[in-house]
Amino acid sequence: MEPVRNKDHPRIGIIGGGQLAKMTALAGLQLGCDVIVLERSSASPAATLALHSIVGDWNDPEVLLQLAAQSDVITLENEFVDAGALRVLEASGARLLPTAHSIALTQDKFVQKSTLAEAGLPVSAFRMVASTQDIHDAGREYGWPVVLKTRRNGYDGKGNFTVRSAADAATGWENLGAGKAELFVEAFCSFDRELAAIITRARDGSSAAYPVVESVQRDHICHVIKAPASLPADVGARAAELARRAVAAVGGLGSFGVEMFLMVDGSVLINELAPRVHNSGHYTIEACECSQFENHVRAVLGWPLGSTRMIVPAAVMVNLLGVDKGSGWPAGLNGALEMPGVHVHIYGKAHAGRGRKMGHVCALGTDPTQVLSRANSAAEMISFGGQP
Amino acid sequence: MEPVRNKDHPRIGIIGGGQLAKMTALAGLQLGCDVIVLERSSASPAATLALHSIVGDWNDPEVLLQLAAQSDVITLENEFVDAGALRVLEASGARLLPTAHSIALTQDKFVQKSTLAEAGLPVSAFRMVASTQDIHDAGREYGWPVVLKTRRNGYDGKGNFTVRSAADAATGWENLGAGKAELFVEAFCSFDRELAAIITRARDGSSAAYPVVESVQRDHICHVIKAPASLPADVGARAAELARRAVAAVGGLGSFGVEMFLMVDGSVLINELAPRVHNSGHYTIEACECSQFENHVRAVLGWPLGSTRMIVPAAVMVNLLGVDKGSGWPAGLNGALEMPGVHVHIYGKAHAGRGRKMGHVCALGTDPTQVLSRANSAAEMISFGGQP
Repeated sequence: MEPVRNKDHPRIGIIGGGQLAKMTALAGLQLGCDVIVLERSSASPAATLALHSIVGDWNDPEVLLQLAAQSDVITLENEFVDAGALRVLEASGARLLPTAHSIALTQDKFVQKSTLAEAGLPVSAFRMVASTQDIHDAGREYGWPVVLKTRRNGYDGKGNFTVRSAADAATGWENLGAGKAELFVEAFCSFDRELAAIITRARDGSSAAYPVVESVQRDHICHVIKAPASLPADVGARAAELARRAVAAVGGLGSFGVEMFLMVDGSVLINELAPRVHNSGHYTIEACECSQFENHVRAVLGWPLGSTRMIVPAAVMVNLLGVDKGSGWPAGLNGALEMPGVHVHIYGKAHAGRGRKMGHVCALGTDPTQVLSRANSAAEMISFGGQP
Repeated sequence: MEPVRNKDHPRIGIIGGGQLAKMTALAGLQLGCDVIVLERSSASPAATLALHSIVGDWNDPEVLLQLAAQSDVITLENEFVDAGALRVLEASGARLLPTAHSIALTQDKFVQKSTLAEAGLPVSAFRMVASTQDIHDAGREYGWPVVLKTRRNGYDGKGNFTVRSAADAATGWENLGAGKAELFVEAFCSFDRELAAIITRARDGSSAAYPVVESVQRDHICHVIKAPASLPADVGARAAELARRAVAAVGGLGSFGVEMFLMVDGSVLINELAPRVHNSGHYTIEACECSQFENHVRAVLGWPLGSTRMIVPAAVMVNLLGVDKGSGWPAGLNGALEMPGVHVHIYGKAHAGRGRKMGHVCALGTDPTQVLSRANSAAEMISFGGQP
């Protein structure tokens, strides 16, 4: 039986039904909101939490208008929705937050980077490339290696290729579609560490900055988040300020993830930003007074933002990635549940796949080294698909 | 579109769809479980979070069997379901936790009290009454006032009547049905304070005790919970141990709420227990390493129990009760959202009613007095139905 909506309660439409939509929905439900989910398939982590679930193509304006008819405000959990379709949605009078303009400025990584550079924000050198010759030229100018990227639809290392030398340029070119997709190239950043920060920006342009965290990647996927990053206070403050300015530069609204490079000389570069809640902010559910998800809900509804303060000295999040194809339900859960101060999140996906994000653990405590060790131990116990 | 279930994920059936079911569902969903809700109406706080929602009479064994067909384990959010119907459910092979036997021992408050007394637990004097004369006799023996109670279906002061003197006995008798419902009488406890503790008991008989809290009632409804209660360590330990023994005495499984009286001489009496998650444990969502709701899910699924430790020195929960009939959406929310360290829960009920539980706030911090003041301020800003 379909549940009945409460007519006075805000209805949040979410484009996408994955784990980011699910965690946003959990935050909204606690605040009494109803959630409507649009996904391409009927089995999605967020679908069971939704008042209604719409199955359809989110690039189809007709489908987006169906979602709008049931929602007071619409947001999204990914940046791959066609900005043109989103503009049709806005033209219909629907309230989309962040706006189609913000999505357009971020979903094309060349446009994003140009926008950040024009706002005076520090980014690595970059330019469009239309041939292997252009890659050679960039390598000569920037020095090798260089990073070749598709303008659109790249994530978790997909759509990226590190070109180590001139001899490697043709391989990179072929690997990313040999010109079928528009490509650009960046100078390689030999960074000391990767940092990230969640910024939630409100309708009035004010923003709340979460602690700057250290992001440890494995195979180009966010693997471990250490919160807060161990940094000199001035470096942390500078990174947070750059992250705020980056989100403002694209006119962001709601929670955005900003990835940064900390260079050996202590300078900070913006790597890229995502116009949505972000994996680097999952720790905020347990570790902060108001999570990135609750603050996103507050921002899109025009409510006051909550405090981003950590309530414990240290938190570590570790992603649970699929080992191989298999069940969406893990082995080894009990061992992890026995560890005090460790919170386990299972996303509820139907199937595991190699490298697929299936859940995460978050450990809280006072000593960062112990917290990291506990989070890693818990994560190692749990496995999705195949043998760990 | 109805969402699709993930076949490997545990399915928890919940009898009842109110705020206790909703908060249990939120905990289960985070752990990747699916939830099936049975309620008498289609609009309920937990229905939108459910994979499926069944609308029907929970005292009808046929309806309970429908729920069982879709669930791996069944639990309940209230103790008013007919124990006979629950026995039919168990006889069908369904796993009900807590068991029909536990529910039978607790839903009849006379049986409950007898069970606790037989287990050697301290309770106030009590006996069955079948006439106003019996009330007079009890008053003479125990001293006035005495508390007249219905054996079944009492909660939040409903089904209770304090008989102040012999002259009052007839009024109490009439007020509670003049013998239509079976009644018993208890000696009045002139307690110093009311205490409560959540105990989660696992399948192997081990149990996890949450901190003993102080419960401040208003009009017989739990109004404020101060966690932890300010108590000498030995009194707190004794109360926790009594609570553990009380839940064991009724063969409890899952999270149970135990209400106690702290007497002026420092002794502790058990008042009553509820075979379910309890209003006095809502603070555990934000204040404890593992909430009463998550531990309930873990217990019914046979998983290891989580730590009940508080992660902050002080937490205060204040209930948000309806002022009058009106919308299920509150006025004054923004002011409360602006207060740091205050978590707001809106249950998502369709309508407010006078005294109806519509939500709660929970404030965390280090100084109990400041935390209480912040929680009260936030709660006073929010109003459901009518003018505050």
